[in-house]
Parts: sequence; structure tokens; C-alpha cells
Amino acid sequence: MKTRRDKTSKRDAAPKTLAEAGENRIVSEITRGLPLGADVRVGVGADCAVIGGARDARWQLLKTDVVIEGVHFLPAEDPRRVGWKALSRALSDIAAMGGVPSHALITLAARPETEMEWVTGLYAGLKRAARKFGAGIVGGETSRSPGPIFLNVALTGWVERQRCVLRSGGKPSDAVFVTGRLGGSIEAKHLDFTPRLAEARWLTEHFKLRAMMDLSDGVAADLPRLAAASGCGFEIFAESIPCSRGCSVRQALSDGEDYELLFTIAARDVPALEGAWRKRFPRLPLTRIGVLTPQTKSSAQPRIADSPHGHDHFPQR
Amino acid sequence: MKTRRDKTSKRDAAPKTLAEAGENRIVSEITRGLPLGADVRVGVGADCAVIGGARDARWQLLKTDVVIEGVHFLPAEDPRRVGWKALSRALSDIAAMGGVPSHALITLAARPETEMEWVTGLYAGLKRAARKFGAGIVGGETSRSPGPIFLNVALTGWVERQRCVLRSGGKPSDAVFVTGRLGGSIEAKHLDFTPRLAEARWLTEHFKLRAMMDLSDGVAADLPRLAAASGCGFEIFAESIPCSRGCSVRQALSDGEDYELLFTIAARDVPALEGAWRKRFPRLPLTRIGVLTPQTKSSAQPRIADSPHGHDHFPQR
Repeated sequence: MKTRRDKTSKRDAAPKTLAEAGENRIVSEITRGLPLGADVRVGVGADCAVIGGARDARWQLLKTDVVIEGVHFLPAEDPRRVGWKALSRALSDIAAMGGVPSHALITLAARPETEMEWVTGLYAGLKRAARKFGAGIVGGETSRSPGPIFLNVALTGWVERQRCVLRSGGKPSDAVFVTGRLGGSIEAKHLDFTPRLAEARWLTEHFKLRAMMDLSDGVAADLPRLAAASGCGFEIFAESIPCSRGCSVRQALSDGEDYELLFTIAARDVPALEGAWRKRFPRLPLTRIGVLTPQTKSSAQPRIADSPHGHDHFPQR
Repeated sequence: MKTRRDKTSKRDAAPKTLAEAGENRIVSEITRGLPLGADVRVGVGADCAVIGGARDARWQLLKTDVVIEGVHFLPAEDPRRVGWKALSRALSDIAAMGGVPSHALITLAARPETEMEWVTGLYAGLKRAARKFGAGIVGGETSRSPGPIFLNVALTGWVERQRCVLRSGGKPSDAVFVTGRLGGSIEAKHLDFTPRLAEARWLTEHFKLRAMMDLSDGVAADLPRLAAASGCGFEIFAESIPCSRGCSVRQALSDGEDYELLFTIAARDVPALEGAWRKRFPRLPLTRIGVLTPQTKSSAQPRIADSPHGHDHFPQR
């Protein structure tokens, strides 16, 4: 009897649906025991998967990313902007590793009554982003969707082994920086943003970055991920957050879809970085927003003043 | 007046929706002026994109493929079979080029009320196929779908340059072969099929295949594509078609989702091939189903007796 009751209560405690589980639990469930294959330097949990031998001069980067009608864009949206966004999101992940994009494959699922003009507009946006950032579009698939439009981008890229930046290299007392201004992206920028490829390449050419990722879910969600991957805690200087016009600090920390770079660098390199950045990118802010700290018990479940929380595709209820 | 009327009638003639355009027209519209990027040997229109330098020993293969609830599988289907199918479809395309799979990225979009058990079952199927055929699963994304479940697989692979088989290498008088039995896949096989990786590797190791692809839409749709890519016409020996049990020739030609290999080989190599195949794969039929012919005007729009037509995701009405 006891055993049976125990089993039942265990089963009841397990989340039944994706909404009950939340994104982190889903990812940890589905990635358990994944066959990785040969030469995988980094798999699930990074901005890109990283493939290559330990001594190869270059590593390959692999990324997949989806935008869905009604979730990532609205039906009335200009399809050229949707196409731009779809490819740029994946490009931003290549940037986050210090990489260079190579080739994209596009999967489009749409309703039979979708207008051809909408689809050619979508591809015009994809092609414009591909040309601007030096990626090729080499194939893909079109399929019928009985529901929303679904646009998946799979993207390859590469990075010199020595310049590859992961989330996990941060160290206590590292300075934490972000590019650009944060918050309010949903008003417009989320469809027009510039993936920070040029900035990331310049950074890894001239400085030893310790850890980096791109800001897709907001600093409040993403910095804890970077810190945890690095085995560190963190502090955020709330008064330093570079807010977009009209945004509160809380919005800047939690709105998401900024697609700016979040990175850490040794404190001793800060003056040289700030000076060189201003000369090279005078129109793009670079802001020190915090510091990595030694990991404490409480930093395993970090809290930020006023508890803004970033985006979770399956928020727990 | 004349000009305006001409413009109007032209605009009226252009297809307005995806259903009006049909899949071939959609693909030709969206792939116009695609930026391909460096080192693209083959882009859109092949089973996989092929990347590599003209003298590289190995080329990379890239493939993306989607299965959608209500289109490629039904909601009540065992999720483990859905996962197996999703990865195996992409593996079949790697096989079709004579290649070896490397790394997969999985994109899953599902409703918040989707059961965790369904998702872990799906991944069990994906992992089983990955292990069986030597592919890694190195990353992916989960997102919320407001409609059907979407599962996209992006897959990389490689092939020795000398063993890469395209659709375009067929020559008049080549013998046309298929592996396995055709038709009736929708009854069950479409969720359980075996991608012909081992068979394709054996074929390219021992024989000079001229052209190859995998049968996803049925011989009636796929052989015209292979022949057109090779600048050839074709004849089908209807009486030779290896029909699945209970299937007519018409069904065998047009049902689709067979995921068998369709390839051509010089007529002089046929006896050696047939003898060696029987020894190596005694339980899998290999059948000569036709011949490539010189391209004639009529072979641009090939017709097969009884006009079965293969699968088109956006059939013209």
C-alpha cells in the first residue's frame, strides 16, 4: 500500500503539461540522454551548438530558430520585416559566439490561402538580411500549415577556435557589459534590429571576452543564465541600465527581444575597451551594467530588485 | 487604355494564393535571386544543399524538414513514431546524396496544454533514430504554438566529393532502379520506415551511380524531377513496379512517403549491380522500373499511363 501511494504522489507531483513544466523543465527533460555524436564541443544550452576537433583552427556553429504567427509576429505585419527578423534572430546567435554566418535553410509552413505576395515579401526580407550580413540561403522546404504561419531558420556559421566565446567562461569580478539600449523592443525594434555581428567580431579581435550571449529574453532572464553557466553570481547596477526612450529600468531588464550583446571581460581590460569602443562605434552605447560575483547559495536562485522576470515561452502558472 | 487593360489582365493571370500557385511555382518565385554565399555546389532543388570547395575531399550536406500535426501525422499518433519519422525523413535525404549524417537541431512548437509525456515520447523517437543511424542531436528550440504542433529537423551530414550523387547526372539509356516496395505507406510505413543510409553507402562504394534521390512524393512525381534535372526523358515499365501488398500500380506510383531510393546507373553495370545486391541485401528488393531517354519536347511535360500524380503540398485547383 505504502509503495503504491508513494508512486501515485510522485506521479501527481510531475508536471503534466508544457505550461505546468515551464521552459527550463521542458528543456532538461527532453535533453536527458541526447546522443551528441562526434566532435561536439558544446550542445544544448548555448546560443549555438559548436562542432569541431579540440585542435581544429575553426569550429562550426549550428543554430535553429523559429518565428510563429501570433507568437512572434502579428498577421497584419509587413512580411519583409518578418523575414528580416527571422534570419536576424539566428544571426544574432552566431554573433553571440563571436562567429561568422555561412548558410541558411528556410522552412516555411503556410495556409493554402496565404497570398503569394505575402510569401514573396517574406523572402525579400530574408534575402535582404542574408545579403547584408553575408549569409547564403541554400535551401529549405515549403509545407502546408493548417494553422498559423511557421518560419524556421537553420543557420550554419564558423568561428576561429581561439575566438569562440561561450556563456561559461565568466569569472568573479568580471565586468558585465551590454551593447545598445534595452527595453521596449515590442513597439517596433523587434522587427528591425541589427544583429551585432560586426561588433562581436571587433570585440573578439581586440579583447579577450570571458563570456557572451545575445539578449533575447531580457537581462533579468539572460544574465542569470550566463552567470550560472560560468559558476558565478552577479550584481546588476540598476542605475546604469541603458534604457530605451520611454522605458523604465524594470522594462529594460525584462521586456526581451533586444538582440544586443551581453558579455563579461576582466576588470583590468575595462578602460582599454571603453576607449577603443567609443572610437570604433561612436553611435552605439556600450554600458557596464554589473559585475560577476563568487557563486553563493542564493545566487543559484538569483533575485533582482523589484523581481522583473524575463520571457519564458512556457511560463509556469 | 490598352496598356491599363493589359496590365490588369496580366495581374489577374498571376496566382494570388499559394493554392493557386502550386508548389513548383512557389519554389520558383521565392528562390529567384537567392544569395547563395561561398562554396555552394548545389542549392535549392536537390535533396540536400551541398557545400564545399571544388577540390575538397569532403563536402558538407545540409537539410531541413518539417512534420506538422494534421498534415504529416495525426494528433492521436504515438509520439515516438512521430519523432522517428521526423528525423528519418531528413536522414533519407542525406542517404539520397550518398552521405553520412552528422548533427541535428530540433525545433518544437507546441501548445501550452500539450502533455509532457507526449513531448518526452517524441524525443524518445528522435533519440532512437539518431542513435540507430549515427546522428547527434546537438541543440534546438522549443516555442509555443497557438495551433498545430510543428517539429522541424535541421540536419548536417557529409559525403566524399567523389561519392556525392546528384539528381542531375542521369544519361539517356541509364537503367532506373528503386529499392523496396512502393505504395500504401500511409497505412503505417510512413511512421516506421528505414532511411536507406546503409544501402546508399554500399551503392556508392561499389558502383558509379549517375543520379539519385529519395522517393518522398511517389515515382510519378519524383522520377520526372530526376529526369528533368538530368536533361532526360524517361519510360516507366509499369508491369515491373514493385507494389506493396494490396496496392495497385497506380497507388505504388503516386501514394508517396515511400522513402526508398530512386537512382540511375549505366546499362552496362546492371548485371553486376543486380548480382551483388542480392548477396548483400537479400531481403530488400531492388527493381529496374524504367529507363532514361533522350529529352524530347513532350518529356518536358511527361505523362505516365493512367496519369497518376504524386504529392504536391499546394495542389493547383
